Formats: sequence, structure tokens, C-alpha cells
Amino acid sequence: MEKLSLQLNCPMPQLDFDVITLGHGSGGLLTHRLLEAGIFKLLDNEYLSEQHDGAFLHLNGKVAYTTDSFVVSPIFFPGGNIGSLSVHGTVNDLAMCGAVPKFLSLGFIIEEGLRMEDLWEIIVSIRHAADLSGVKIVTGDTKVVEKGKGDRIFINTTGIGEVHPKADIRANRIRPGDRIIVSGDVATHGITIMSQREGLEFETSIESDSRPLNFMVKKLLDKFGQDIHFLRDPTRGGVATTLNEIAQKSNLGVQLEQSQVPVNEQVEGACEMLGLDPLYVANEGIFLAIVASEVAEPALDLLRKEAFGGSAAIIGEVSESNAGKVVLRSRIGGRRVVNMLPGEQLPRIC
Amino acid sequence: MEKLSLQLNCPMPQLDFDVITLGHGSGGLLTHRLLEAGIFKLLDNEYLSEQHDGAFLHLNGKVAYTTDSFVVSPIFFPGGNIGSLSVHGTVNDLAMCGAVPKFLSLGFIIEEGLRMEDLWEIIVSIRHAADLSGVKIVTGDTKVVEKGKGDRIFINTTGIGEVHPKADIRANRIRPGDRIIVSGDVATHGITIMSQREGLEFETSIESDSRPLNFMVKKLLDKFGQDIHFLRDPTRGGVATTLNEIAQKSNLGVQLEQSQVPVNEQVEGACEMLGLDPLYVANEGIFLAIVASEVAEPALDLLRKEAFGGSAAIIGEVSESNAGKVVLRSRIGGRRVVNMLPGEQLPRIC
Repeated sequence: MEKLSLQLNCPMPQLDFDVITLGHGSGGLLTHRLLEAGIFKLLDNEYLSEQHDGAFLHLNGKVAYTTDSFVVSPIFFPGGNIGSLSVHGTVNDLAMCGAVPKFLSLGFIIEEGLRMEDLWEIIVSIRHAADLSGVKIVTGDTKVVEKGKGDRIFINTTGIGEVHPKADIRANRIRPGDRIIVSGDVATHGITIMSQREGLEFETSIESDSRPLNFMVKKLLDKFGQDIHFLRDPTRGGVATTLNEIAQKSNLGVQLEQSQVPVNEQVEGACEMLGLDPLYVANEGIFLAIVASEVAEPALDLLRKEAFGGSAAIIGEVSESNAGKVVLRSRIGGRRVVNMLPGEQLPRIC
Repeated sequence: MEKLSLQLNCPMPQLDFDVITLGHGSGGLLTHRLLEAGIFKLLDNEYLSEQHDGAFLHLNGKVAYTTDSFVVSPIFFPGGNIGSLSVHGTVNDLAMCGAVPKFLSLGFIIEEGLRMEDLWEIIVSIRHAADLSGVKIVTGDTKVVEKGKGDRIFINTTGIGEVHPKADIRANRIRPGDRIIVSGDVATHGITIMSQREGLEFETSIESDSRPLNFMVKKLLDKFGQDIHFLRDPTRGGVATTLNEIAQKSNLGVQLEQSQVPVNEQVEGACEMLGLDPLYVANEGIFLAIVASEVAEPALDLLRKEAFGGSAAIIGEVSESNAGKVVLRSRIGGRRVVNMLPGEQLPRIC
């Protein structure tokens, strides 16, 4: 993590405090000192520098608007932290609307006692993730709650994106015969968090797949436009839950080929050890695309050439039969209905 | 509070659970059940009903975009609750940008164990406040954290508003000679929360002034346009902190007349009892307008005719002298510099 700060050439400024106190959320002098201590400078852009109650943006046409709160525990994990996750998560939600992400808001709820060093590292990651994703943090808010009334830090991000001119992403555009593409290995983020929390050690370290998906989605839309019928990132509840939502919304069936679902070998091993089905484990860095059958192969080719799409695969298709249901064909050929995740597999995965 | 539910004709639906559990934040079946149990219906509008990862909006021109997290404690208080506050707060921030509020996002972070009855009451208030303010809740998110890792409920709202065509609200438009108008009594919200928390009883109950200010601001802009130089709601840190920000941003002085600052008699009594200066106590339902001197009197007349502006007053003026400072002329004629609130007067006021 220190590496990231140095890499970005933004070491923490010298401050006269080590931890965040209630006063830093007062809206008064301490809040100003905290922000002026380097946070505004770190996140700087032409919108944020106005320091008004809100940001002024010029927008024209159809935009997508989304919100997500992040409560992941632990806040630092292999492959990222709550800061990068909160940027990628909202960027990806916008991409799933067929939008090009442009602007983000940032709301911190900090538990008194958070080390300034940790907050700094998180904000450095936010800046880094925003740059990677091509978005700007344009407005923000900081609140502090008493020790024991929060859990180090929660982050809300919302985002605004311009809908791609060729995009028309709606569940009711899904058709029988459409193919289901997954853009990468499943279950990676969930297993990373779970192994951190349980203190499990694996031979080779597994890292979260938290990353921006917007550039991959934009390329798909540039090339295949309205043949991309639906997009969704299978976060909480995993691929199985998301496909169930898709089946219900479209009132069509989903046929899933277990043998085609890409899972990293170590992640699969960890799932077996923990007794988990990778189809239900949360993801952060992959998406599902429901596409017209005739573009499925070229779309797959396009994704596989991308840095984050090397293991993309066609994992199933949409059918008229089994409307509202997801039917899995297992590796040994049996068929079974795969339901939505009923309760909570792992709280606070994101 | 029950009154509000009945008034809106939205009694809580029959449910098979009484309290929110971690599973309700899973993104799976329980989350769906919670939302489908009546929350979607209660907040219903044409944008939200799409139930996508985000909302699609059509926007043209200059918009304002703002975020605020609400962590007020207690979550229910005389005159409102965390739900209504989270709508009014963001609506008012947009109004302070000179914008007409249009769309809101809603992010819940719920502590496991929150009674469904309380959540329902909060969401009824959100709907009610959104209707009163003329905005639509278009996208949302729900997370649940373990008992002891939150405090009942935190709410983040962000908002998008269309900037009024006649508005040009910027600190660098403030001029020496400008008058400072406050739209209503100061210190009411802070004293309400404080008296609730301290269990103080006053002869007549004081109620929070949490309310939407956007219609009043729109009327000011309709009539006086660019003669309204700056707007800001003096929330955390109160009028004194906000005026200090204004003095610093504009690099001009602020001369404040203590005798002109409107304070409700009971609130003033409570302030004396608690040893607090009303100028530092948080507000939710008033704003400060810095206006050209020639429109100060007609602007005041306009505000005083409004339901929320009956006690509006001109409380001071901007000067070239004392640049960056706020100077108070006390009731007995003495002058002293009024600084920004240094630390935290009362945590979790909003």
C-alpha cells in the first residue's frame, strides 16, 4: 500500500494529528484543516476546486445515475481497499447501464479513531482508481461518528455517466437464443475477502478482482451496439443470483453450462475447502453480457483481447422454456434449478 | 409519526419479519423481499420502477450535483426524522447552488436489528419530504452491518438539480456593501437535537426546522436573478462558521448585527441554559443570502411573505475592511471578531 502512495508521488503531509476525531466531522475549523491538509489537493480537479455545496456540471442528453455504499470488512485487502472498491463499484454500475462514467460523488462516514495514515492511503487509492477509470470526484462530504458507532470507515459513492449513443440496455430486450457471456473468472473478490477475514492462508495469494470495467463495455457497445441486450455485474449474491434476476425480469429461462464457467484454480480450491459454490460468491471485476447469438463469438473475441477479459467465456443461453428460472447443466450432464442466494453468504463483501 | 403514515395512507405491510437482519443486505432473496415488501411501491415513480443498476435521466445544460451523509442521533426527533432530514438536507444544498432540485439517490447503511417499523416510518418520511420538495428518488442501495458496527441507520443522499437560468451563485460575486439576509430563526435544529439527547424538557416543545428551502430560493432567483450573489445554508458550525467561510472565500469582511439575528424565544432560553451561542448552533431550515444592497429590502419582503420566511431579517453587510473576518456588533454596541467553530459543539447533529 505504501508502494501506491510513493508511486503516485503523494506521501502523507505533515499533520498535527494522527487519528480522526469527532471534531473533524464538525463542519468547522478541524474539518477545514483536514480537507486543506492535502485531501482537496490530492483529489483536485476543476470541479472540486470550487468548494461549493455542490458541483456544477454541463450535461446533455441521456445520463445514468447510480448510488452504492461500501462497508467492506476488512477495509484493506489483497488487490485493493475500500477506497478503490468504492470507485470501481460505481464506475461499473454506470457501465452496466451502457453509460460512459464521468463524475463521482464521495461520502465518508468515519469512526472516530481511524488513523489518518489509513484515511490517506484510502484517498490515494480513490484518486488512483478514478484516474484509471477516467472519472472525476466532483463533490464530497465527511461525517465522523463516535467510537463503536461505526466500523473504521464506510464510503458512499454515486456516479453520473453519459449513456453510450448506441446503447439500449434493458431486461425486456433479452430474447430467447441470446448468449450469456461472462467477462472473467468468477468468485475471486468474495474468496479474497473471506480468506482475509477467516485468516486462511493459501499457497499462492488470491487477489480481489476489483477493477474498472467501463472501457471493455464501451468497446463492446462501439462495435456491437444494440446487439448487446443486457449488462449486469454479479456482485452480492454472485452469478447465480444475478442470472435469477435476469430470468425473472425477462420472464425467460437461463440455461447455464457449469463446465464453461471460468474459475481460477486457487479460487476453486478455496471454494471447495470452504464448501462454497463459486456461482454464489460475490464478484467485483467481471460482468455478464446478454448478447444476440450472432455476435456472441466476435464479442467474446473482443473481450479476450482485453487486459481484464482474458478468461471471458460464453456460459449459457436464454431460452423460452423454464421461464423465470436458471437451469444448470452440471459437468457430468445432470440438470438442476439454481435459485437466488436465499440469505447472506458473507456479510460486508463490498 | 404514526400520524404521518396514516395521513399518507401507507400503513406498514404485513411482513414475516420484525427486524432487519444481515440477510436483508445480501443482495439476494431477502433483499428482494424487503424491497418488494412495499419499499419500491412506497417510493414509486417512473424512474425507480426500472430497477436497473442505475436510473436513466434526461438532462440538458448546467446542473448541480451534491452529496451528504446523515448520521443524526437520535434518528427520530420533534419535527422530523433522519429520513426527512436526508431529503431536505440535499434539496437545500442544491438550492444553495441556485439549482432547482430534481432527482435524489438514496443509500441506506442499516445496523442489524433495526425494527422494520422504524425503517418503514423513515421511508414514509422520505417519500413525504420528496413530494413536499418536488423531487424524485430515482436510485437506491441498501447495506446492513452487524450489531455494534453502526448506529441504527445512516443515510446518504445525493441530488441533481437544474441550475436556475438566472442564477450565478459564486463567492467571487460577493461585493462590499452587499447585505446579508437570514431566511428565518437561527439555532432551532441544533437545540432540538441537543435537548432530545440530553433529555431536557422545555415548557413548550421546540421542533427542528428541517424543511425544504428550494421554493423560496427559486422565487428569489425568479425575481432578483444575478442580484443574488451567494447562498449558503448554515448547517454544522452554524451561522458564525458559514459567515467565516464566506469572509475567507470572498476575501472581504462581514459585519454582523447581533440585535438583528432572529432567534426563537424558547431556543434563546435553551441556549442560555446550555451556555451556547446561537450563532454556532446548527440549522437545517434556514439559509443565508448575500444580495446586492439595492434588492435587500424587496428580497426581505418577498421572503417574509413565505411560510418558512416569516422571521427573515437583514443581519449584516459585507465590507472591504476586516477582510477574511467576521466582526459582530453586540446588542450593547461592542465589537468583537467571531471565529469559525474550532472543534465539535455537538456531534451528529445531521
